[in-house]
Amino acid sequence: MQKQATLWGAAFDSKPSGAVIAFAAGRDTAGISPADSMLISYDLWVNQAHILMLAKAGIVPLSDAKKILDGLITIQKFASKNKFYLSSTYEDVHSAIESTLEKLIGPEAAGKLHTARSRNDQVNTDMRLYMRDQVLQLVSQIIPLVKTLAGESKKHIHTLMPGFTHHQHAMVTTWGHTLAAFAGELTRDATRLVQWIRLYNDNPLGASAGYGTSISIDRSYTAKLLGFDGVELNSMESLMNRWEPEAALAFDISVFMNHLSSLSETIILFSTPEFGMIRVADAYSTGSSIMPQKKNPDTLEVMKGKASYVVGQLTALMELGKGNFIGYNRDSQWTKYILMDVIRESAHAPVVMQGVIETLHVYKKNMEIWCHKNFIGAASVMEQLIDIYGLPMRQAKQVVEKAVKYSRGSDVVTYAALQKACKEDGIRIHFSSKQIKDWQNPKKIISLTTSFGGPGPSHVRESIDALEKQVTVLAKWHQKTCARIESAKELLKKDIAACMEEYEKT
Amino acid sequence: MQKQATLWGAAFDSKPSGAVIAFAAGRDTAGISPADSMLISYDLWVNQAHILMLAKAGIVPLSDAKKILDGLITIQKFASKNKFYLSSTYEDVHSAIESTLEKLIGPEAAGKLHTARSRNDQVNTDMRLYMRDQVLQLVSQIIPLVKTLAGESKKHIHTLMPGFTHHQHAMVTTWGHTLAAFAGELTRDATRLVQWIRLYNDNPLGASAGYGTSISIDRSYTAKLLGFDGVELNSMESLMNRWEPEAALAFDISVFMNHLSSLSETIILFSTPEFGMIRVADAYSTGSSIMPQKKNPDTLEVMKGKASYVVGQLTALMELGKGNFIGYNRDSQWTKYILMDVIRESAHAPVVMQGVIETLHVYKKNMEIWCHKNFIGAASVMEQLIDIYGLPMRQAKQVVEKAVKYSRGSDVVTYAALQKACKEDGIRIHFSSKQIKDWQNPKKIISLTTSFGGPGPSHVRESIDALEKQVTVLAKWHQKTCARIESAKELLKKDIAACMEEYEKT
Amino acid sequence: MQKQATLWGAAFDSKPSGAVIAFAAGRDTAGISPADSMLISYDLWVNQAHILMLAKAGIVPLSDAKKILDGLITIQKFASKNKFYLSSTYEDVHSAIESTLEKLIGPEAAGKLHTARSRNDQVNTDMRLYMRDQVLQLVSQIIPLVKTLAGESKKHIHTLMPGFTHHQHAMVTTWGHTLAAFAGELTRDATRLVQWIRLYNDNPLGASAGYGTSISIDRSYTAKLLGFDGVELNSMESLMNRWEPEAALAFDISVFMNHLSSLSETIILFSTPEFGMIRVADAYSTGSSIMPQKKNPDTLEVMKGKASYVVGQLTALMELGKGNFIGYNRDSQWTKYILMDVIRESAHAPVVMQGVIETLHVYKKNMEIWCHKNFIGAASVMEQLIDIYGLPMRQAKQVVEKAVKYSRGSDVVTYAALQKACKEDGIRIHFSSKQIKDWQNPKKIISLTTSFGGPGPSHVRESIDALEKQVTVLAKWHQKTCARIESAKELLKKDIAACMEEYEKT
Amino acid sequence: MQKQATLWGAAFDSKPSGAVIAFAAGRDTAGISPADSMLISYDLWVNQAHILMLAKAGIVPLSDAKKILDGLITIQKFASKNKFYLSSTYEDVHSAIESTLEKLIGPEAAGKLHTARSRNDQVNTDMRLYMRDQVLQLVSQIIPLVKTLAGESKKHIHTLMPGFTHHQHAMVTTWGHTLAAFAGELTRDATRLVQWIRLYNDNPLGASAGYGTSISIDRSYTAKLLGFDGVELNSMESLMNRWEPEAALAFDISVFMNHLSSLSETIILFSTPEFGMIRVADAYSTGSSIMPQKKNPDTLEVMKGKASYVVGQLTALMELGKGNFIGYNRDSQWTKYILMDVIRESAHAPVVMQGVIETLHVYKKNMEIWCHKNFIGAASVMEQLIDIYGLPMRQAKQVVEKAVKYSRGSDVVTYAALQKACKEDGIRIHFSSKQIKDWQNPKKIISLTTSFGGPGPSHVRESIDALEKQVTVLAKWHQKTCARIESAKELLKKDIAACMEEYEKT
Repeated sequence: MQKQATLWGAAFDSKPSGAVIAFAAGRDTAGISPADSMLISYDLWVNQAHILMLAKAGIVPLSDAKKILDGLITIQKFASKNKFYLSSTYEDVHSAIESTLEKLIGPEAAGKLHTARSRNDQVNTDMRLYMRDQVLQLVSQIIPLVKTLAGESKKHIHTLMPGFTHHQHAMVTTWGHTLAAFAGELTRDATRLVQWIRLYNDNPLGASAGYGTSISIDRSYTAKLLGFDGVELNSMESLMNRWEPEAALAFDISVFMNHLSSLSETIILFSTPEFGMIRVADAYSTGSSIMPQKKNPDTLEVMKGKASYVVGQLTALMELGKGNFIGYNRDSQWTKYILMDVIRESAHAPVVMQGVIETLHVYKKNMEIWCHKNFIGAASVMEQLIDIYGLPMRQAKQVVEKAVKYSRGSDVVTYAALQKACKEDGIRIHFSSKQIKDWQNPKKIISLTTSFGGPGPSHVRESIDALEKQVTVLAKWHQKTCARIESAKELLKKDIAACMEEYEKT
Repeated sequence: MQKQATLWGAAFDSKPSGAVIAFAAGRDTAGISPADSMLISYDLWVNQAHILMLAKAGIVPLSDAKKILDGLITIQKFASKNKFYLSSTYEDVHSAIESTLEKLIGPEAAGKLHTARSRNDQVNTDMRLYMRDQVLQLVSQIIPLVKTLAGESKKHIHTLMPGFTHHQHAMVTTWGHTLAAFAGELTRDATRLVQWIRLYNDNPLGASAGYGTSISIDRSYTAKLLGFDGVELNSMESLMNRWEPEAALAFDISVFMNHLSSLSETIILFSTPEFGMIRVADAYSTGSSIMPQKKNPDTLEVMKGKASYVVGQLTALMELGKGNFIGYNRDSQWTKYILMDVIRESAHAPVVMQGVIETLHVYKKNMEIWCHKNFIGAASVMEQLIDIYGLPMRQAKQVVEKAVKYSRGSDVVTYAALQKACKEDGIRIHFSSKQIKDWQNPKKIISLTTSFGGPGPSHVRESIDALEKQVTVLAKWHQKTCARIESAKELLKKDIAACMEEYEKT
Repeated sequence: MQKQATLWGAAFDSKPSGAVIAFAAGRDTAGISPADSMLISYDLWVNQAHILMLAKAGIVPLSDAKKILDGLITIQKFASKNKFYLSSTYEDVHSAIESTLEKLIGPEAAGKLHTARSRNDQVNTDMRLYMRDQVLQLVSQIIPLVKTLAGESKKHIHTLMPGFTHHQHAMVTTWGHTLAAFAGELTRDATRLVQWIRLYNDNPLGASAGYGTSISIDRSYTAKLLGFDGVELNSMESLMNRWEPEAALAFDISVFMNHLSSLSETIILFSTPEFGMIRVADAYSTGSSIMPQKKNPDTLEVMKGKASYVVGQLTALMELGKGNFIGYNRDSQWTKYILMDVIRESAHAPVVMQGVIETLHVYKKNMEIWCHKNFIGAASVMEQLIDIYGLPMRQAKQVVEKAVKYSRGSDVVTYAALQKACKEDGIRIHFSSKQIKDWQNPKKIISLTTSFGGPGPSHVRESIDALEKQVTVLAKWHQKTCARIESAKELLKKDIAACMEEYEKT
Repeated sequence: MQKQATLWGAAFDSKPSGAVIAFAAGRDTAGISPADSMLISYDLWVNQAHILMLAKAGIVPLSDAKKILDGLITIQKFASKNKFYLSSTYEDVHSAIESTLEKLIGPEAAGKLHTARSRNDQVNTDMRLYMRDQVLQLVSQIIPLVKTLAGESKKHIHTLMPGFTHHQHAMVTTWGHTLAAFAGELTRDATRLVQWIRLYNDNPLGASAGYGTSISIDRSYTAKLLGFDGVELNSMESLMNRWEPEAALAFDISVFMNHLSSLSETIILFSTPEFGMIRVADAYSTGSSIMPQKKNPDTLEVMKGKASYVVGQLTALMELGKGNFIGYNRDSQWTKYILMDVIRESAHAPVVMQGVIETLHVYKKNMEIWCHKNFIGAASVMEQLIDIYGLPMRQAKQVVEKAVKYSRGSDVVTYAALQKACKEDGIRIHFSSKQIKDWQNPKKIISLTTSFGGPGPSHVRESIDALEKQVTVLAKWHQKTCARIESAKELLKKDIAACMEEYEKT
C-alpha cells in the first residue's frame, strides 16, 4: 500500500504506518520467504547444542567438535547479516547448513555432526523452539493490548451507550464496560498460550528417526542447552504428533483472532455513518481508488479476514493429524508451512489493534443519545417494580411489556401507560411520574447497576483491577520464561568455551 | 446392531458388548434426545442456588423461596425417575421448569424465580456445569485407558516388531514402545482437559442479559453453591463468548479423538491378513451381511469416522465465533447442539478403546519375522561403524547404503557386501562376519538402544514409570475436583435446610 | 417456542408461524428421529424394484416375489401411517424391513429378498434417492424465493439507498438493485443443485459389496424403476465415494446458506435503530425473557448460525473422504448422519427467508436521507468531470478528493470547494453551482447510471427479466425431472401388476 | 530435494524428476512469489480490452487510447521476459501497471485508463480469467491421467487380487477393476470443473465499485474480448461473491485431491513389505537421511498432506463468505491468496500421479496369492448355492457361515464342512468336492462375475470404453473452449489494429 497516494488519500490527514501496511497489505506485491529461512537461527542453535553434547559424551573427538563449532559460528555470522541464503540447491535448512559446513571444514569433521540424530527429530526441535518464541512474542504483544484496553476502559467508565442483544438496544451500558469485556477475553487468550508452553516445552532431540539410537547421547543435557523443561518421554511421539503442538498453537491463535474479529466488527459497525459512535483514525483507514470521499476501516476488515484464514489452517492441521499410521509420514511436513502461515497472518494483529484502540475517536453524544430512546430503560422499570414493590418478576415484566405497548410513539415508558397497564393487571402500587422518568434515566440506571461484573462504574473499575493483576502475573511469567531461555543460551556459550579450553589443553 | 445375529455372526465366538454397540451403532435406529434433556439436572441445581441466594439476600421473601425450593425438589424427583418430559410445548428447559413450577406452586411465587437473571446467563451456567461434568467424565475414562496401555506396554517390552517410517520398515522397535507412545499422547490429552477447567470454571450466573442488574444479588455465593472457582469478571463476556469454552472443549476432544484414530489405523493395518500381527477380539468386530467369512474391525473404523466428525464440529464452533457484534446473538444457541454432538459422538471412545487393547491378540512371531528382513538392521550397522570405528556418520551412512545395494537378494547387509563397499570408499577397518550378523540381530539391536525415550526395554519401563506418576497426579486432581463439587452440593443442601429452618422460626 | 407467551410477547402484534418456529427453535425441546426413519420409503421402493427385477430375471420364483411384494406393500401401508417404527432392536432400516417381512411371509420367501446385493449398495441407493428428493425440494423452494426477491426488487426500483463498500457509504443505489443481487446469487445456487443431479443420478444398486455378483441381475432395469439416468460404471465407486455426493450436496447447501446469511446480516443491520431502514415483521421476530421492549430478528441470526453449522458438516464430510483405502470402510456411515443434519438444519430456510422478505417493512425515507449525506455523490461529480469535460480519470478523482476536503462541514461537494480545487490543480473548466448540486442529486445519479447490471432502474428491470427467464428454465427442468421420477414409480407399479398377473396365470 | 545425493540415494537406481521435486519439495527452500505476479498477464489483457472499449465507445480519444495500448504492449514485452517486477513500492498489480504506464506515456493519457471502473471489478475480472485458465489446465492434466489409468486397467483386467472391505479381504477382484474405479472418479472430477466454467464464465468488468457508472461503457464488448460467455447481471454480485467462485473451485480441487489421496493410500499400503503387491518406482520415492536401506513413497504421502491442506483452504473460503454485509469488504481480498495457495499446492498433482501409475511395478503373484486364502471365495460359494440350488439367500449365507467355521484351519470352505453345515440346517442338496473347489477358484470367480460394473473382465472393458467416451467428450470441450478463448485474443488484436488504423486516418 506504499505509494497509495497516487490512487487515493488526498482527503486524508494522516497515512497508515509501516506496521499497519505490513498487516493489511497482504501478499499482492510481497512474496513469502522459504519456510526454512525462519528456522536458520534455531537450526544453528540445535546444531551447536548437539555437537557440544556429542563432544562432552566422547562420541565425537574434541578436535572435530571444535571445527564444527567454529564452522557453525561462521555460518551464524553470515546468517545474522542475512547473508546465509536458502535456495532450491538444498533440500532444507538442515542440509544447507551441513553442506555449507562441509565446504568450510571438510567432510571428515562435518560428516560427524549428524551422528545419533535424524532430520525428523532435528526439524521437530527447530519447530518447537520457533513456536516457543512465537508464543512468547504473542504474549508480549497481548499484554500491552490488554493494558491499552484496560486504560481506555477506565477512561470511559461513564461513557453511556446502548448495550445490545440481537443487534438491538437492550439495556444501558458504558463504552468502558464494553472494552473491559474484550480485555478479559484477551487475558484468557494469553493464559492459554502459557498453557501451550506448559504442555510442549520438552526436548524432541535425540528421538532420531523415532526409534532412538545405540549411541550414548545425553538428551537431558541438550534439553538444558535449548531451554527445554525436560525430555520427551517416548521417541516415537514427536514424530507421530507432528501436528499436535502446531494445531494447539493454531487453535490458540484462532480463538485470539476471533476475539479481535469481534472487536473489529463492533468498531466497524460503530463507525458507520448510521451508528456514528466512533471514528477510526486515518492511520488505520484506507481510501478508495475511485470514490474520493471514502475512508474505510480496512485494517479491521482484514482482521476479520485473517480470523477466517487461521480457522482454515487449524482445520487443515487437524485433518493432517487424523488416522495416521505409526511413525513419521511425510504428510506431516505440511504442518510446518501451515503453522508458519498462521504466524505470518496473525503477526502484528495485537499491535495493530492496540493502535486502533489508542487512536479511536469516541462520539460520546451519539452514543448517549440512544440511551434515551426505544424503551431502553424498560428493564430498569421492571427491576424497580420488583425491587421497590416486591412484584413477582414475571408480573413486573408483563406489566412493563404492556406499558411499552401503550407508550407507543414515545421513547420511554410513560406514566400514563404504566398506570393503565398496572390497572389492567390488577396491580395496586403508587409511583410518581418523576420516579418513572428517573428509573429510565441512563446515568441513574448505570449507577443503580450494582451487580458484580456489570457496567456500574465502580464494578468496571473493580474488574479491571482484577484483570490488571492477572496481566501482571502473565508479565512476570513472560519475563521469567525469557530469562530462562536466555540463561540456556548463556550456558551453551559457557560450555562451548569450556570445551574449547579443554581442547586447547589437549 | 442388537439383533445382528440374523444378518451375520454365525462364524463368531463372542458378540459385541452393549457399550461397543452404543459406540458403533450410530443413529440408524436410535434418535437423539432433545438437547435440553441433558440440562435438566443442571438447570434445577442453578435454580436452587439462585433462589437460595435471592432469599438470603432478602430479595425474595423466605415464604416464596420455600415454595419454590419445595417445587424444585418435586420436579427433581420426577426428573430423577426420567419422568420430567421436555416437549415442544415448552421453548426450552428453563421455561419447562418454570412453567411446571407455576403449576405446582402458583404464579405468585413461581414468578419470582427469574428475578435478576436472564435466560442468557442461565443457559451459560447450565452449559458450564454440563461441560465441567463431561470434562471430568472424560478424564476419569482416559486415566484407566492410559493405565491399560501402560500395562500392555510393560508386557510387550520385549515384543520385537518393525518400526515404521513412511509405512516402510525403518528400524527395530517393540510393541511395548509403540503402546507407550500412545499412552503418552493420551496423558497429555487429559492434562489439556485439566487446563480447560482452569480457564473456564467461573460463574456466569448473574450476568443477566449481559448488562448486570440493579438488584443486589450475591454472585460469589452462587459461585460457591455451584462449585465454581470464582465469578466471571465482566457480565458481557459469557454471552459474547458463547462459543469459546465450547470450541476449546471440542478442540481438546478432537485432539484426543485424532490420537485414538491413529491408534485405530495402526491396529486396523496390523490386523489385515497381509500384516497379520494383531487380531481384534470378536467382541469389537462385526460381520458382513453377505460375506460369511468376514470379521471387520468396525469399532476402530468408527473411531476414525468420529474423529473427522468432531473436527467438523470444531470448525463450526470456530466459525460461529467469528466477527460477532457485541452482546448476545441467537446464532450462538447452535453452539449448544454442536458441543452436545461432540460429546455424544466421543462418549465411550476411551472405554471402547480400552476394551480393544485389553482383548487384543498379538501375533508375536509375525511381528518379529519382519525384524530379520528388508535390511531393517542397516541403521544399526551404520551406528556400529560410527561407535566402534569412529567413522564420520556421513561416511558410515554412505558405505552402508552401498552395502545394502551390494547385498541385494539378501535380507541383511552381508559381510562380503560391506567389505566391498568399504574397500570402494577407502575405509580400512576390520570386522568379522559374526559381528555383522550380530549388529543386525533384532534382540541385540533393541538391547543396544540406550537412548532415553527409545525402545530399549529399560527405557520403555522408565518412561512408563514417569507416565504413571503423571497419571497419579491427574487422578488425584480428578478426585479432589470431584470432591469440591460434591461439597458445593452439600453446602447447597445445608444452606437450604438452614434457610428452611429460619423460615419455620418466622 | 410454542408457549412463549408466558415468557415474552405482550408487546407483539403477531406471533411467529409454525414454519418459523420449526426453523428457529433448534433442538432444545425437540429430539432428532433415527436417521433411517428418513429412508423407510426409499428402502421400500428399492426393495420393490430389486425383487421385481429378480423375479423378471428368473432369479427368484414368481411365487416368492409375489409374497415379498405383498409383504412390502403391507409394510408401506404401516409406514405411510407412521406406524412402522425403527428401534434399536434392529441394526438399521434394511434389517428392520427384512425382519418384519420375515414375520409377515416367513423366512423361506423373505430370505430371498437380499439376493445379489449387499447393504452397501442398498444404503447407497436409498441415500441417492433421498438426496435427489432433497435437491428437488430445495430447488422447488428456491424458485419462489427468487421470484419474491425479483418481485420486491421491481417494486423498489426507485427506492433510493446508500450503496456500501467497507460498511461505509460509497455511491447511491436502490433497494431494488440490492435485492436483485441476492436473487441472482440464489438462481445460481439452484443451478448448482441441477448440476448435482447431472453428476449423481446413477444407480448404485447391484454393486453389491463392491465386487459385483455372479447372479445375472439387470441393473439397467432397476435404474429405470428408480428413476435413475443410468447405472454406475464401476461397482467399487459408490462404496469408495460414500462421501462425495454427500459433500457435493453439503457444499451446494453451504453456499446457499452463506448467501442467505449475507442477506440476513444486511437485514439485521438495516433493522437496527441506528440504521432504521427496515423492520422485520413480528412474525419473524422474538422477544426477550427479561427486556419487555425487545423485538429481535432471531430468524435471521439463526440463518447465520446455520450457515456456520453446515460449513462444519462440509468439513467433516471432506475429512471423511481423505486418504481412504479401497473398498467400503465403516467410517463412511457417518456421512449419512452428517448429510441428514445438513438437510435438517437448512430445511425451511428458503421458505422462512421468503416470508421475511414478503413481510419486510421498508422505511424509504430513512434510506434516502443518507443519499444526501457524506459526499455520497462525489464519485458522480468525478464521472461528470470525466464525461463532460474529458478530464483524465485520475485528475478528476484527485480534484474531487480535494474538493471533498475543502467541503468539510457540508454533506456534498460545494461549488466553492470544487472551484478552489480546480484552480489549485490548474484545471480550467466552467460549471455552475446548479450543475454541482444536480450531479449529486441521488435521483439524478441513479437515472444517469446507465451501465448494464447497475442500479439504473431500466437496467435493474432488464436484469430481473433475464433472471426470471433463468428461473423459468429451472422450473421447467424441475417439473420435467419430477415427472420422470413419477413415471418411474408408475412403471414400477405397472410392472409389478404385470408380474402378478403373469403369476396368476401360472 | 535437488542435492539429495549427499543425504541419501546411494541405493537408488534412478532419481526423482524435476516435476516430482517441484511437487514434493514444499516450501522449505523455495519461497512464494507475490500473489499479483500471477495476475500480470491477465491485468494487461483486461487493460487492453477496457481501453479498446473506451476508445470505440468514444469515451477516451483515439490518440490517448493509442498511447495507452502502446504502453501496455511495452509492459507486456517486459512481462513476457519476466522483467516486470512487482515490489512493495506498489500496492498491487493494478497500480504497478498504471504507474509504469504513467512513466511511459505521461499522466495525461495514463490517467484515463481507469475510467469507468474500479479496482474491485478489475481484480475480479483478473481472477476470473486466472481461475478459468487454471480450470482448463487442470482438465487438460486430468484427461491423460484418466487415460493412463484406463490403459493400465485394461492391461490388468486379469490381474487377480483380493477385494477389500474394512481393510479385510472380501471377495476376489482385479487390479484392472480397481484402477477403473479411480478412473471413473477422476472423470467426474473433470466434469465438475466443466460445470464451474458454466457457472462462472461471465464478465465482472464494468461493475465498477459495485454500483455501476454513468459513463456509457459496453460490457458485452469487453466480455467478447475476454472470452466470457456473457456479462454478470448485477453489478453488486461479483463484489459480494468474491469468495464463491473461489470456494467452488477449491471444492472441486479438494474432491479431486481426496480421490488422489485415496489412490495414494492404496498404493502406499500395497507397497509395504507386508502387502508387497506393488513397488513405486525410484523416481517417485525418496530415501532417508539416516536409514541407508529406505525407499519411501513420499510423493504419495505428500498427495495426502496436500488433500488435507486444500480442505483447510476450502473451509477458510467458506467462512470468509459467511454473514457479509452488502458491498465490497476488504476481508474478501484474502480469497485471492487462499485460492492461489490451493492452485499452487495441487499443481502437478495429476501429472505426478500419472507418472506414479505409469511406472508402478505390480507383483501379480503376491496379489493373487491372497485370492486363495482366508475364505475369500465364501461369498462365491453362497452365490452358487443360491444360483444352482435356489436356496434362499439368507439360508445360503448362514450355511456358508457355518461351513467357514467348520473349515477352520483351512483357507477355503471344505467339502466336509459344507456337508456338515448343510446337514445341520436340513438342506438336502448334492454337490461334489470338485464343485466346491471350483466355486472358490479365483479365476473362475472373476469369470462368473457377470454383473454390470463388476470385476468380470468383459465388464471392466465395457466400463472403460464408456469412460473413454466421456473423456473424449471432455477433451473436445476442452479444445473448443481453449479455441474460443484464443479467438477472443485474436479479436482483441484485430480490433486494436483496426482502431489504430482508424487513428492513423484521423
